[in-house]
Amino acid sequence: MVRRIVVALGGNAILTDDPTAKAQQIALEKTTEQLVPLIKDNDVEIVVTHGNGPQVGNLLLQQLEANSAKNPAMPLDTAVAMTQGQIGYWMVQAFTKALTKNGMGQVDVLPVVTRTVVDKNDPAFEKPTKPIGPFYDEAARDEMLKQYPSWVFVEDSGRGYRRVVPSPKPSKFVEAKALAALPSKTVLPIVSGGGGVPVIATSEGFEGVEAVIDKDFSAAKLAELVSADDLLILTAVDNVYVNFNKPNQKKLEVVTISEMAEYISQGQFAAGSMLPKVQAAMEFVTRTGRSATITSLDNLPNFLATGSGTRIMP
Amino acid sequence: MVRRIVVALGGNAILTDDPTAKAQQIALEKTTEQLVPLIKDNDVEIVVTHGNGPQVGNLLLQQLEANSAKNPAMPLDTAVAMTQGQIGYWMVQAFTKALTKNGMGQVDVLPVVTRTVVDKNDPAFEKPTKPIGPFYDEAARDEMLKQYPSWVFVEDSGRGYRRVVPSPKPSKFVEAKALAALPSKTVLPIVSGGGGVPVIATSEGFEGVEAVIDKDFSAAKLAELVSADDLLILTAVDNVYVNFNKPNQKKLEVVTISEMAEYISQGQFAAGSMLPKVQAAMEFVTRTGRSATITSLDNLPNFLATGSGTRIMP
Repeated sequence: MVRRIVVALGGNAILTDDPTAKAQQIALEKTTEQLVPLIKDNDVEIVVTHGNGPQVGNLLLQQLEANSAKNPAMPLDTAVAMTQGQIGYWMVQAFTKALTKNGMGQVDVLPVVTRTVVDKNDPAFEKPTKPIGPFYDEAARDEMLKQYPSWVFVEDSGRGYRRVVPSPKPSKFVEAKALAALPSKTVLPIVSGGGGVPVIATSEGFEGVEAVIDKDFSAAKLAELVSADDLLILTAVDNVYVNFNKPNQKKLEVVTISEMAEYISQGQFAAGSMLPKVQAAMEFVTRTGRSATITSLDNLPNFLATGSGTRIMP
Repeated sequence: MVRRIVVALGGNAILTDDPTAKAQQIALEKTTEQLVPLIKDNDVEIVVTHGNGPQVGNLLLQQLEANSAKNPAMPLDTAVAMTQGQIGYWMVQAFTKALTKNGMGQVDVLPVVTRTVVDKNDPAFEKPTKPIGPFYDEAARDEMLKQYPSWVFVEDSGRGYRRVVPSPKPSKFVEAKALAALPSKTVLPIVSGGGGVPVIATSEGFEGVEAVIDKDFSAAKLAELVSADDLLILTAVDNVYVNFNKPNQKKLEVVTISEMAEYISQGQFAAGSMLPKVQAAMEFVTRTGRSATITSLDNLPNFLATGSGTRIMP
């Protein structure tokens, strides 16, 4: 029985200090090399999804700087789709190298441009919270506000101001049936990059919206809809901690959703960082009765051997 | 027996005078609506491929204008991948509307980010010929050459100067096996947009190159590798003509490849316009012994009913 795992790659899987295509591609080569044991495991088939925060931010900035009537900036939904192409290509290139090196050239990697449906009445549209793009100082922020009066900015961790956009919850994938049929031991789909292109349902079809969907929540929805046995959220740390950096710090290993809910109510996890990962994992577990794991790329061999990581159970 | 058709959409399928995302999406809605009879036909399954000339040109221009160390312009291979995401998203949105309207909501449309392998010794790398991006007057061209000394420009039909890049021939698709398994009556793949992201083989995998692959040639190679029964190249005219716009003008209906070769040697077809379409069609017919058709979107119902269009036979 092959275990199907949806693997959500965090920003640290692509992120580098150097924003060139080359540097980001090299960072992804390291990431895909680390994913090889998972792909090599005969009992596992995977679907990969990934974030796009830095890339979509940079793209929007370039588009806005060069915006003209002859060559207008693309709206955010189109920009997300562009980063799915960009990162999808980088990933498939990196995967090919890693798979070839490890004698698995038979695996075809297919990045699929994916829409994610959100509810047009999602309260997120009233209250944008998701930071995208670069940090601005106050003067630069005011300059941007003159050009784009509808933009909303927030002060971010003392590092300056960032634009925020709505981050509605994913409600479904239009092509769920076709996506569920893709993964196998020889086909590795990359789907729903950057959380998917956000669209709302209309009477005629779907309409793109200026929003960004949290990639961990979309990974949870994806895992549910492709009937994954496991959701694996990869981040910078091997485990989730409570009382983090305090004398009574505790590493979480196997945790139930009710224990996690209690930790959340204690405010144990940072909003916009560990909190959405924990919540996304819990949503998958609640909806499916299966388990989800939060761990690091470095810890993958241990995850495969012993289930190491923070495993959230019903 | 279901007939598999690779459909290559020309620039006129997306092209509009208005370069906004909205206008291009509306143009695609008309196009996808016209493709419905093909998808509705019980005896047909299709794979769609498309050009990206105006989109990749505009994207490169924006990226170059806003180029900085903090936010560098992406190289051409990455830019092609970005337009696959962009146009793939627009197409899937447009297809959903057209399919829903026509009671075929069960069809899932999957745009796949696709690499196309070219030979690193392809003579095209010595002699760039493919125009991309906007027209420049002489002064603007000289300005660009100061910034990008390696760029090559040509004078284009009296309309000014355009950058040209190499246009090597496609030699294979890395994921041919997986792509061939995708199309069905309920899955409509969109692949190899803009001719595919050009890569060359290396000892480790593949490396992206600054080039653009002609989408009709990549469509021909794709049709061969996914075992298509037909290659359908859609353009602005119902038929290919010889002695075009002359008193002895003749509409071509059923033509053999040897007749076509004779017309080519007479210089009947315009380079960069009808000639590559005819040559691409001939390559598919020569390699597979099957037939290829060049016609217009408007003529699709007649093509389905009677095979109308210019049909190239072995």
